[in-house]
Amino acid sequence: MQRLKGIIEKTDTKAGMAFAIVVQCLILISVVTFSIETLPHLSPTAEQWLNGIDFAIFVFFTIEYLSRIAVADHPWHYIRSFYGIVDLVAILPFFLGNVIDLRAVRAFRFLRLFRLLKVVRYNKAIRRLFRALNIAREEIVLFTLVTGILMYLAAVGIYYCEHDAQPEKFASVFHALWWAVATLTTVGYGDVYPITVGGRCFTFFILLIGLAVVSVPAGLVATALHKAREMEEEEAGHIRNRE
Amino acid sequence: MQRLKGIIEKTDTKAGMAFAIVVQCLILISVVTFSIETLPHLSPTAEQWLNGIDFAIFVFFTIEYLSRIAVADHPWHYIRSFYGIVDLVAILPFFLGNVIDLRAVRAFRFLRLFRLLKVVRYNKAIRRLFRALNIAREEIVLFTLVTGILMYLAAVGIYYCEHDAQPEKFASVFHALWWAVATLTTVGYGDVYPITVGGRCFTFFILLIGLAVVSVPAGLVATALHKAREMEEEEAGHIRNRE
Amino acid sequence: MQRLKGIIEKTDTKAGMAFAIVVQCLILISVVTFSIETLPHLSPTAEQWLNGIDFAIFVFFTIEYLSRIAVADHPWHYIRSFYGIVDLVAILPFFLGNVIDLRAVRAFRFLRLFRLLKVVRYNKAIRRLFRALNIAREEIVLFTLVTGILMYLAAVGIYYCEHDAQPEKFASVFHALWWAVATLTTVGYGDVYPITVGGRCFTFFILLIGLAVVSVPAGLVATALHKAREMEEEEAGHIRNRE
Amino acid sequence: MQRLKGIIEKTDTKAGMAFAIVVQCLILISVVTFSIETLPHLSPTAEQWLNGIDFAIFVFFTIEYLSRIAVADHPWHYIRSFYGIVDLVAILPFFLGNVIDLRAVRAFRFLRLFRLLKVVRYNKAIRRLFRALNIAREEIVLFTLVTGILMYLAAVGIYYCEHDAQPEKFASVFHALWWAVATLTTVGYGDVYPITVGGRCFTFFILLIGLAVVSVPAGLVATALHKAREMEEEEAGHIRNRE
Repeated sequence: MQRLKGIIEKTDTKAGMAFAIVVQCLILISVVTFSIETLPHLSPTAEQWLNGIDFAIFVFFTIEYLSRIAVADHPWHYIRSFYGIVDLVAILPFFLGNVIDLRAVRAFRFLRLFRLLKVVRYNKAIRRLFRALNIAREEIVLFTLVTGILMYLAAVGIYYCEHDAQPEKFASVFHALWWAVATLTTVGYGDVYPITVGGRCFTFFILLIGLAVVSVPAGLVATALHKAREMEEEEAGHIRNRE
Repeated sequence: MQRLKGIIEKTDTKAGMAFAIVVQCLILISVVTFSIETLPHLSPTAEQWLNGIDFAIFVFFTIEYLSRIAVADHPWHYIRSFYGIVDLVAILPFFLGNVIDLRAVRAFRFLRLFRLLKVVRYNKAIRRLFRALNIAREEIVLFTLVTGILMYLAAVGIYYCEHDAQPEKFASVFHALWWAVATLTTVGYGDVYPITVGGRCFTFFILLIGLAVVSVPAGLVATALHKAREMEEEEAGHIRNRE
Repeated sequence: MQRLKGIIEKTDTKAGMAFAIVVQCLILISVVTFSIETLPHLSPTAEQWLNGIDFAIFVFFTIEYLSRIAVADHPWHYIRSFYGIVDLVAILPFFLGNVIDLRAVRAFRFLRLFRLLKVVRYNKAIRRLFRALNIAREEIVLFTLVTGILMYLAAVGIYYCEHDAQPEKFASVFHALWWAVATLTTVGYGDVYPITVGGRCFTFFILLIGLAVVSVPAGLVATALHKAREMEEEEAGHIRNRE
Repeated sequence: MQRLKGIIEKTDTKAGMAFAIVVQCLILISVVTFSIETLPHLSPTAEQWLNGIDFAIFVFFTIEYLSRIAVADHPWHYIRSFYGIVDLVAILPFFLGNVIDLRAVRAFRFLRLFRLLKVVRYNKAIRRLFRALNIAREEIVLFTLVTGILMYLAAVGIYYCEHDAQPEKFASVFHALWWAVATLTTVGYGDVYPITVGGRCFTFFILLIGLAVVSVPAGLVATALHKAREMEEEEAGHIRNRE
């Protein structure tokens, strides 16, 4: 039992690492089979094969889930943890699948993709990221809020500029909001765009302000990560000095 | 009176916080109803309901505005402050609505959205943001100016390259300016784009320079915010040392 | 003479500032009239007016140019300086205009737009910008070079992926290069895009690498400006300490 | 022999610099001729000329390759080095060209473009870049991983939102993945975009998160380069202090 615990929960032994890699691969395979199943015009043979692989992985994941509960020091702790819920949600659709047709629910398996992040060597980077998000939390929330307000103002503005010229494309503020999202994020699909002079001038000004607002959060995360790395190095230096 | 003042102006008491949240929600509801009213093919019942909600919120906002004047230490100070004007402008259209049809003016209510920023815990972040804008003010103005000049040069250049090939789409420098805006901000709607070899080479070079110019302000804001945060920490450190 | 010199060359007196602002305005007006002249279907009256304004501004600029030579301490120094050449090039087309039809050459007047940057209070910001460009010069050149190579590789790659499927749009590596420019700068007009599975996978990988390459220079400029500002503050501190 | 070695391997002498520049130019010419050969409707004369230039450059590159082996201190070291393999791969297609038709393989010559980076004065900048990549390695890998997961989640989400409304464009998760790539990188070709309300709301939220994720790596590289430059200056300071 103790050995099984070492294999499932730790990744610093050879067997534990191998187990972790197998789980990661099965998650990826499960994601790929799910994607292939959505392809139109699949031959019945292919569908049978995919269902077979799906079922095998599901069995493996169920056994893994039960094992994790069995070896955990505090089973309830694991069951209610983020990864515990993800693991359960990933296998649940199979049990419910026979009762009701829940194709959408089966997609929840992709939540397990987050397990990819649990590779041991990136723990430090993830911790640094959370630290950085914590440092810049207020600014990020503020900019998200301002981005939201700005998008709404842009939508209202363009609605008044373009509604009369393009009553179909800018039918309401909600339609205009879609334009604001596609424009201020600079995606610019090209399905809706202003054609009046007023609307184009408005777009120019809103973009001038908007660009500097929408892309700031990314810069904030980058500088905060830089800061978090420096703080970490400083702490490491303190510890080294003390020794 | 003193109690009412505490509720309306402060947010550190329970009642004051509740009042602030109610006002915020009503602003959001008023914005949503305004957006829904722009939807085409609304049933008369829906319109009646929306008008009713609108009227109720308007009454509330009017009472709120008058109360704020009543409880203010310096009523004129509040009336002429940023939020005072915003609050007045937001309710004014209702009084004028019966005299003249001012659908556009009614949109001014969304200015109240800025009240969302006045949530107490982001005061510090907003102060930091203004500090950052102050630090990088000169650079931001400089880059905005250069962006403007660059866009105009890009428009003149593409006009000479493409006018003969696409006399409709690049009819004048103003039409070309629209292309410059959509291209240098990397929105790229796809409604106008160069088709000649010369125009495409020109686009390549202008983008090479332009990208490094247009997206710098966002980076400046991010680094200035980083700097502002550091200055704040330093000041906090000084105060702590002094104590 | 000395007084005229003060007005033309300096901006710290009232008259000098007024003169500088008048010149700036005339540059802007001249740019606007040039843009309006490109509009199709202009009425003859409008054209006459525009030509009149053009001529008046040209006379003013010629007088200004000669005055600047007259009051300069070293006339040749001014004539061969950046602004001296710009000022000459801006008025030259008018003298040549009668000899040969040089509509394109007349556009050179917009070079005078750079005079807008010569507003005295941004001298410091411009100096800081040049310092920042100097700090990050090597990296910027390196990234521009890598961007160029990457775009070419992307063009060759997509040519092989898409040539057979879209022989019209991806007719040669040069056509593919246009796609590479529009894609890696994330403009994405939508006039050319991959449709084969191979081309789309290739696009995904090239974008993953490309995005991190193409938008780095902007970040470099931002951090270098931050550094330049810090260096300036440090120097100012040294001077203050010495005093 | 020693003199030849100096010319081929070093660039600090006049002859060595001249040789390096000649090689660089021939690489560029070879790249240009390759690109021109892909143009449709080439006249037979042009093709003959291009083949002639190609052959001459190939002969030169073969001689260069053999010379580099001849003058190298450890020939095997050079042959198995990055540039040794690139040099071999660039000339190989010519020998194989007669046996099998390998048009695609001939494109490998462009790998030699990386020799452009070997210009001596950017060695320092390249070293700094590698240092920066090393500093931010973990974060870059982490963000690339998160970007990958996010794109897949976006694809699955939009597939469920849009599959019924646009069964052709969002035929499978793989089709949706193409949309996710074009959208989250903000390229936005406009060949596929959501049309349902659900799909548009989903796009809004995924873009809000995605933008802050996808453009972070560029910011990371920029701040890490800043850090690497500071470390370098510090080291230079230490050396100067020691002297």
